[in-house]
Amino acid sequence: MTETQGTASPSRRALIGWGGAGLALGAAAAGSAVAMTRTGNDVDPAGTATGVAVDFHGAHQAGIATPVQDRLHFAAFDVQTDDRAEFVQMLKDWTAAARRMTAGRTVGDGAYGGLPEAPPDDTGESLGLKPSRLTLTIGFGPSFFEKFGLADKRPEALVDLPQFPGDNLDKSRTGGDLCIQACADDPQVAVHAIRNLARIGFGKVAVRWSQLGFGKTSSTTPDAQTPRNLMGFKDGTRNIAGTETDRLKKFVWAGEGDGPDWMTGGSYLVARRIRMNIETWDRTSLQEQEDVFGRDKGEGAPVGKAKEHDEPFLKAMKPDAHVRLAHPDSNGGVTILRRGYSFTDGTDGLGRLDAGLFFLAYQRDIRRGFIPLQRKLSATDALNEYIQHVGSAVFAIPPGVRDKDDWWGRSLLTEEA
Amino acid sequence: MTETQGTASPSRRALIGWGGAGLALGAAAAGSAVAMTRTGNDVDPAGTATGVAVDFHGAHQAGIATPVQDRLHFAAFDVQTDDRAEFVQMLKDWTAAARRMTAGRTVGDGAYGGLPEAPPDDTGESLGLKPSRLTLTIGFGPSFFEKFGLADKRPEALVDLPQFPGDNLDKSRTGGDLCIQACADDPQVAVHAIRNLARIGFGKVAVRWSQLGFGKTSSTTPDAQTPRNLMGFKDGTRNIAGTETDRLKKFVWAGEGDGPDWMTGGSYLVARRIRMNIETWDRTSLQEQEDVFGRDKGEGAPVGKAKEHDEPFLKAMKPDAHVRLAHPDSNGGVTILRRGYSFTDGTDGLGRLDAGLFFLAYQRDIRRGFIPLQRKLSATDALNEYIQHVGSAVFAIPPGVRDKDDWWGRSLLTEEA
Repeated sequence: MTETQGTASPSRRALIGWGGAGLALGAAAAGSAVAMTRTGNDVDPAGTATGVAVDFHGAHQAGIATPVQDRLHFAAFDVQTDDRAEFVQMLKDWTAAARRMTAGRTVGDGAYGGLPEAPPDDTGESLGLKPSRLTLTIGFGPSFFEKFGLADKRPEALVDLPQFPGDNLDKSRTGGDLCIQACADDPQVAVHAIRNLARIGFGKVAVRWSQLGFGKTSSTTPDAQTPRNLMGFKDGTRNIAGTETDRLKKFVWAGEGDGPDWMTGGSYLVARRIRMNIETWDRTSLQEQEDVFGRDKGEGAPVGKAKEHDEPFLKAMKPDAHVRLAHPDSNGGVTILRRGYSFTDGTDGLGRLDAGLFFLAYQRDIRRGFIPLQRKLSATDALNEYIQHVGSAVFAIPPGVRDKDDWWGRSLLTEEA
Repeated sequence: MTETQGTASPSRRALIGWGGAGLALGAAAAGSAVAMTRTGNDVDPAGTATGVAVDFHGAHQAGIATPVQDRLHFAAFDVQTDDRAEFVQMLKDWTAAARRMTAGRTVGDGAYGGLPEAPPDDTGESLGLKPSRLTLTIGFGPSFFEKFGLADKRPEALVDLPQFPGDNLDKSRTGGDLCIQACADDPQVAVHAIRNLARIGFGKVAVRWSQLGFGKTSSTTPDAQTPRNLMGFKDGTRNIAGTETDRLKKFVWAGEGDGPDWMTGGSYLVARRIRMNIETWDRTSLQEQEDVFGRDKGEGAPVGKAKEHDEPFLKAMKPDAHVRLAHPDSNGGVTILRRGYSFTDGTDGLGRLDAGLFFLAYQRDIRRGFIPLQRKLSATDALNEYIQHVGSAVFAIPPGVRDKDDWWGRSLLTEEA
């Protein structure tokens, strides 16, 4: 299974698993030249210390049930090559690089001190930084299955989203053949990872769009403080926790018989760029804001209750309150795992903050997760006056990479599979 | 003087100075409703712990000599009002808000639990977060002095920059009547600060452009690990340290007689958005990369030397090496305090990473700091093949706010001054 705890410090792993270029050997000493690992850290049993490494291997990909890291760099790619063998080799190269980067190591052994006439194996900006709980999670979009003769492998659960009321999607922020979600507690580590994968993929894939997120808006750690979104409200109070094995199995992981075998242990991701009309919201009364959410702003308690985690009494809320409409009890039990991040991408041409929520939700089946939920929300949610969905994508997230011989997408792309 | 050390924990300050809405009184308890301070932290004597507050008051503004925080949100504003009294009142309101936010408090006392029919005094997304060493630094651009009859107050040192070879400036990322530099160790705290100042300024000023930075590229703490820029090289090895009082006085602070009295204790800021041609750089050989910088990539040692902090032997470098050309010895001693941040603003229309360095440099006089340096670099630096200056602005940074009765810009805008 996916380890959400770091199971070995990078230095230890480097020494045991890959034979010794780790910092324990003093590789950073002047003159010895080759500094192959980033600075390590001791293991934190709770898996939430910023320094540790998260295990790349497991039945599920890391970055879903993993306690949410502080920063995001998400990239959607389009495939440029028609050569299946070349593409498979790229996935293998990506996997090897991801395995090393998540462990806090550089992409290749010849990063510095390699051949001077060759470009370095690693771009270098994360050298000296901690592993920072980096996770890298790959996904395949609907358009990917039009390539390489894979049409019959497309899962039924990976549907194209319908047009929802109010959608105002920007094509340049929508879709993609592939995605990589990089999460880490240090943004430079996340950016470094996406950049190096893009570099390895040069000529085979190209970045279609990307998104940085700076403040997690949902926690998958139940005892942690609930983060606030850019509307100032606590968000994700009742999210699925990474430790809730039963709920993960029921709502997040694709099980045997759910669809094609290659997806067993995987999940489905919906990504939505949700712009907030910050300036309008900020001039709205506290009462209206609290009515819209169905919670009080300071404590985060549901209407009529005292504490954030008190069970909401939905009928005490306005009929169009966001919490009421989105609650599983209002949706036949529908539950998704949210892993979104706040974003601020500067200012638009009118001097307004281009900011909002980059919504990421994992689920067992999009048809029974995001779609029914968003059908209801897009039609009736009071929040719609203050938000707009401007980007959208869906991806099939394959199961985890099991060991050092396995690679991203093997179950989908191996002929025998 | 500007305190770069946090001098009091927010909880203590709240109790002593502002009479007690602090978390020490348990304001977060359910039912008591008003949670006015963010989570506090003990004071770190070195001033580099992420949680502490940096003193807002001092002879110089904080955010210049302060040990560089991890994250940046920088905003340039244009003035919309013609009413000097209204503008001065906004500066006073900004100052009051900045004083509170840097101390880890919300903007107003009526943030939550205020009048339900009024918008909250604070947008709320930083509630529960630590002060995070937030600093807020204001500046006045050349165009500001065309307003309010201030033309004769414009310092001669605040010159418009010439057009440098290779400049490719985007007007929408250039100029501005005012700037606010928000630095903090938590990006949500920096974004919250800019947003709330923009909100307070509504109708009086409008955001012209803004920039987020996620990885500091220069340190002003000499014993800290030198950060790396997105080219993977250590940057700012020989920067002015916040503790070097003599060099600060010589190169950074405007002294008496340097210009108008209202600037004494202030400084001058040059901001440049420098896009890096990441994809080209990443395909360049290690030898070429090291030749361009004049340092080795792994350790950061100058050409021919073993350690990062070894004195460079400039003649050992290529004549167009960046370190050689930018070194004070090559520029008659010219030295600037750099405080730049890496940025990644997604992807451009061609699938290339829109990334680089948001360069921020403070100096005593732009005519003897950035201009001669950039004249040389723009003409001959080997780095120019891989970078492009795409945004530019200069600002006069007034002296610090001395006490609770003082306000940003008072020395400039008070009639008697």
